[in-house]
Amino acid sequence: MPQLAYVNGRILPLADASLHIEDRGTQFGDAVYEVCAVMNGRILDWDPHLVRLRRNLAELGIVLDIADGPLTLQARRLIAANGYAECIIYMQVSRGTAKRDHAFPGAAPANLVMTVRRFDFAQRLRQLETGIAVITQPDNRWGRVDIKTTGLLPNVLAKQAAKQAGAFEAWLVSDETVREGSSTNAWIVKDGRIITHPTGTAILPGIARDSLIRLAHAAQLVVEERPFTLAEALAADEAFLTSTTAPILPVVRIDGTAVGSGSTGPVVRRLAELVWNEVARQTGWRA
Amino acid sequence: MPQLAYVNGRILPLADASLHIEDRGTQFGDAVYEVCAVMNGRILDWDPHLVRLRRNLAELGIVLDIADGPLTLQARRLIAANGYAECIIYMQVSRGTAKRDHAFPGAAPANLVMTVRRFDFAQRLRQLETGIAVITQPDNRWGRVDIKTTGLLPNVLAKQAAKQAGAFEAWLVSDETVREGSSTNAWIVKDGRIITHPTGTAILPGIARDSLIRLAHAAQLVVEERPFTLAEALAADEAFLTSTTAPILPVVRIDGTAVGSGSTGPVVRRLAELVWNEVARQTGWRA
Repeated sequence: MPQLAYVNGRILPLADASLHIEDRGTQFGDAVYEVCAVMNGRILDWDPHLVRLRRNLAELGIVLDIADGPLTLQARRLIAANGYAECIIYMQVSRGTAKRDHAFPGAAPANLVMTVRRFDFAQRLRQLETGIAVITQPDNRWGRVDIKTTGLLPNVLAKQAAKQAGAFEAWLVSDETVREGSSTNAWIVKDGRIITHPTGTAILPGIARDSLIRLAHAAQLVVEERPFTLAEALAADEAFLTSTTAPILPVVRIDGTAVGSGSTGPVVRRLAELVWNEVARQTGWRA
Repeated sequence: MPQLAYVNGRILPLADASLHIEDRGTQFGDAVYEVCAVMNGRILDWDPHLVRLRRNLAELGIVLDIADGPLTLQARRLIAANGYAECIIYMQVSRGTAKRDHAFPGAAPANLVMTVRRFDFAQRLRQLETGIAVITQPDNRWGRVDIKTTGLLPNVLAKQAAKQAGAFEAWLVSDETVREGSSTNAWIVKDGRIITHPTGTAILPGIARDSLIRLAHAAQLVVEERPFTLAEALAADEAFLTSTTAPILPVVRIDGTAVGSGSTGPVVRRLAELVWNEVARQTGWRA
């Protein structure tokens, strides 16, 4: 069976799934997106992803003329049609197709695209043991990275630098402050306190980030949402990152320097237990 | 006859011209572009546009596997096939189509797209008489706007703000300094000196900008490439903007305040003569 994708109401083979070359996402980065994890055919944290998508659309004045109910049905339909139990679903909404002109077009309906890709979440549990390395890169992104747009070239270049350095991720640093990774949120642990950059316009408010904060609070752990410096990160007891595709991973090296013991620490182990229990609670999935 | 476009070696009706939904330009803004003016069927400043395209591709490590000669032929072929004497040609090169992943894909060939749209250059000569208004907006773009990428959402939002304010363009201001417009370069004239922001990473090195500097020098006019403040602009004798689609236009109001006399001044008139004579020299076109 070929892989299937969704484009503006139609499910069709991924190989045939296209957008007009004057799609505004393509020509202007005038589009937002979401990525959700799917386990046991169930979408993790679907509601918060939908809320964030709607907020981002509203920020940019993009009108997506499909209500949450039908959108949810279409997403589920695409997942079921592909028949993957474990996968990620990517949803992209652009301002539509129009003759190229910077200002908003008059009456172009939004373009809605969804793809589904198999994903091996069990690898993330294996990586809990080994941990991953990050490098740092200057954060040279625009001023509204809280909006999840497809304008990801700075993130691409940072991730490529990480890959070339043999690292999993690049942490983006501005004025000595670690903001977040190129596609993940960044965290450190010091004296039992869990520290991450506050939301605002300088980071993407990750759904996995938000979920972890709730779980930590419920477990009576102390979370501080405040900027932290690269020096603090290098002197931390533990560090980790979170994202939809990496719900929690220990960061054991930053720019080649070991963090704490250089291996997975007790607070990250405890948080991983909370995170993966929440995954199991929502989806029934266990490795 | 339908409008025609070019996609990866094929000329086809614009209505049918598409890119795969996993084109990296579409999903990551991982693409660069050029826009050229065409008059009398001849492409204005083609060589400098090609040089800039190649530099931008090199900056991002995108490999476009077509030499300048064949690329020029394909551009000319598309223009001829559309049969427009006066038009603009848009060329976009992305890193290719690949399974979504931030880091560079292995062996995806670049996607090359070209479109041609009719354009009324004579309107730009009429606007020389009336002048145009600009507003100002904070420059919140990323740190490498010298690379002409499709990550244009900040420019889109600035242009939309201008449109809503009844202005032609938004000038982007950072730390009191006027950098450039959302799709044009910004200039002021004071005591006969022509002033524009220097190239570097904070502005797009416009081809029309570069051409105007050469023409001004040849005419013994004084050009200063240096940052200027919004206060300087408001106190200037004259102001103007340049771009491929607006080779030179007088800016007669900034945020509602008249610049100088509030109408087209003598230096802009002199420069416009030089600019349009150069257009005529290259293409034979006169309004």
